[in-house]
Amino acid sequence: MNKDELPALHMDDRAFFDGVLACRLRPLAKAITLIESSRLDHQIRARSLLNALLPYTGKAIRLGISGAPGVGKSTFIEALGNYVIDQGHKLAVLTVDPSSAATGGSILGDKTRMETLSQRANAFIRPSPSAGNLGGVANKTREAMLLCEAAGFDVVIVETVGVGQSEIAVASMVDMFLLLQLPNAGDDLQAIKKGIVETADLIAINKTDLDPRAAAVTKAQWQSALKMLRPASPNWTPPVLTLSALKKEGLTEFWNVVLRYRNTLIPTGEFEEKRRRQAADWMWQIIHSRLDQCFQQHPAVKDALPGVTQKVFSGCITPAAAASSLLEAAQIFDFQES
Amino acid sequence: MNKDELPALHMDDRAFFDGVLACRLRPLAKAITLIESSRLDHQIRARSLLNALLPYTGKAIRLGISGAPGVGKSTFIEALGNYVIDQGHKLAVLTVDPSSAATGGSILGDKTRMETLSQRANAFIRPSPSAGNLGGVANKTREAMLLCEAAGFDVVIVETVGVGQSEIAVASMVDMFLLLQLPNAGDDLQAIKKGIVETADLIAINKTDLDPRAAAVTKAQWQSALKMLRPASPNWTPPVLTLSALKKEGLTEFWNVVLRYRNTLIPTGEFEEKRRRQAADWMWQIIHSRLDQCFQQHPAVKDALPGVTQKVFSGCITPAAAASSLLEAAQIFDFQES
Repeated sequence: MNKDELPALHMDDRAFFDGVLACRLRPLAKAITLIESSRLDHQIRARSLLNALLPYTGKAIRLGISGAPGVGKSTFIEALGNYVIDQGHKLAVLTVDPSSAATGGSILGDKTRMETLSQRANAFIRPSPSAGNLGGVANKTREAMLLCEAAGFDVVIVETVGVGQSEIAVASMVDMFLLLQLPNAGDDLQAIKKGIVETADLIAINKTDLDPRAAAVTKAQWQSALKMLRPASPNWTPPVLTLSALKKEGLTEFWNVVLRYRNTLIPTGEFEEKRRRQAADWMWQIIHSRLDQCFQQHPAVKDALPGVTQKVFSGCITPAAAASSLLEAAQIFDFQES
Repeated sequence: MNKDELPALHMDDRAFFDGVLACRLRPLAKAITLIESSRLDHQIRARSLLNALLPYTGKAIRLGISGAPGVGKSTFIEALGNYVIDQGHKLAVLTVDPSSAATGGSILGDKTRMETLSQRANAFIRPSPSAGNLGGVANKTREAMLLCEAAGFDVVIVETVGVGQSEIAVASMVDMFLLLQLPNAGDDLQAIKKGIVETADLIAINKTDLDPRAAAVTKAQWQSALKMLRPASPNWTPPVLTLSALKKEGLTEFWNVVLRYRNTLIPTGEFEEKRRRQAADWMWQIIHSRLDQCFQQHPAVKDALPGVTQKVFSGCITPAAAASSLLEAAQIFDFQES
């Protein structure tokens, strides 16, 4: 799509479009604010803007980073970020933290966390959207990622706290997902338990300077644990690295693994295939959540739901019959069966 | 509901109704076949029959049993089944095995597996529904469970193979979920990985006669693993038992734990609350799957889907825009936003 052939963009959005493509941070930040808005007119504008910018997206390496509080995510991202910028890259750091909706702002996104990184010209740091459920927050972050790519950031890091389903959401929007761990054995079980490990393309044990021996043991445990899980790709077995973000040790090795991942999976087509699958999943996820939302907001459903639920609870009707009666009440589709 | 006040039941179904309540196995089996049928008229009849029988359900203890092939599920169910029948109970054994749809019948459900049990008057063994996806198979089994309860079976065992999502489906329809394990350490990681452990109310290590020492080690490992996971109820920490189904050792202890579970959680209201939550989840699951099905079968969606998907894959439109265009094509709801 040529700039001059653009469909009617809102006047401000035309400025956003030009500003984003010119990699000016102020229009980029404002455009992200637009896509994060819940106002209907903003959403319509955001959709047009995103579609206009879409041809300029997709060129970054998208790296997801997860780890429990205390594992040193900020320190690691700052160290890695400075390293990749020194290598000539432009870095955007985004965050998915649904809990920020409760607190009205993201602790994770606080720029003071990454003091040296936030002052670099080629870095853009954006906190988590501060409103919405996980699905909404994740979708806004996905779209923000596209804007950052259009702005020419060729490394995008999406970080999340190591709790709940947000890790799965982040894993589903990045090319490569990193689990950051501490050098002690207890953590691994939590990650395995939550099904996170299966999404990991790389595990890094941070703070290895504190206790190199424990780090080695943890590394061996992870390696043996990973052997029991089937890797997502026949061409990639998630490596386990040790590093110290504080002492800036292991960053080169880490980044080389990221590059090796990309260089391994691009020729096999898996890299592109993963992105296509993520895009399709994302589409269906939006459809399902919208169908559910519309169903629940349907006046006839709203009217009938409390009574029907009560009947299910008291054992007067089966859940299947209750479902049918609500679906019939909504008259959404042509139900032939009664 | 009084038998004589029943709404118009199909003539055959009236016979099913009476036969099930009289605990005659032939009408019970035929009624289950009716609910398993995919024919629309059968489904309508099944719904009426189930609603008519619903007041007579709910009195059994519902026990889910999961374990990998080779762990000895059949031997265990046969041993436990004979034990509970000897205690004066009536036992129904149902199976959830979506893979049986591929083979046209359930290996798991084969009565020859449980030879002595299948010959007992107070036992009813029913293989997995042999058609449908996991959701469909699970729903049929849920409904078969209700029929068995109406027939007076006061212990219902729902078994599943220890692979895939069928364990989660079974856990969501029973009062108490048992993980059957072998006495070696390797298994636990697989179960933890799949998020199964969180659903377990009880873990039993079978075949402990083969290697008592390994069994003791495995038991200790499980106990330490369970300590790290938050129990579902503040009043119940899943115990780890060792037993030998083949030698009929540990059955009394096992059954006592089942009774203790019920006697602990009934007074706190958690037992009933779990059933209510399961019923509500079941209802919503049916609604979501039906909304999705109707959406995908909508002519306008079917028409537009290939083109829209292709556009998403080639990066011409965002997944969000694609979702909106499909939702608008379906015109299911009154979308105000464009």
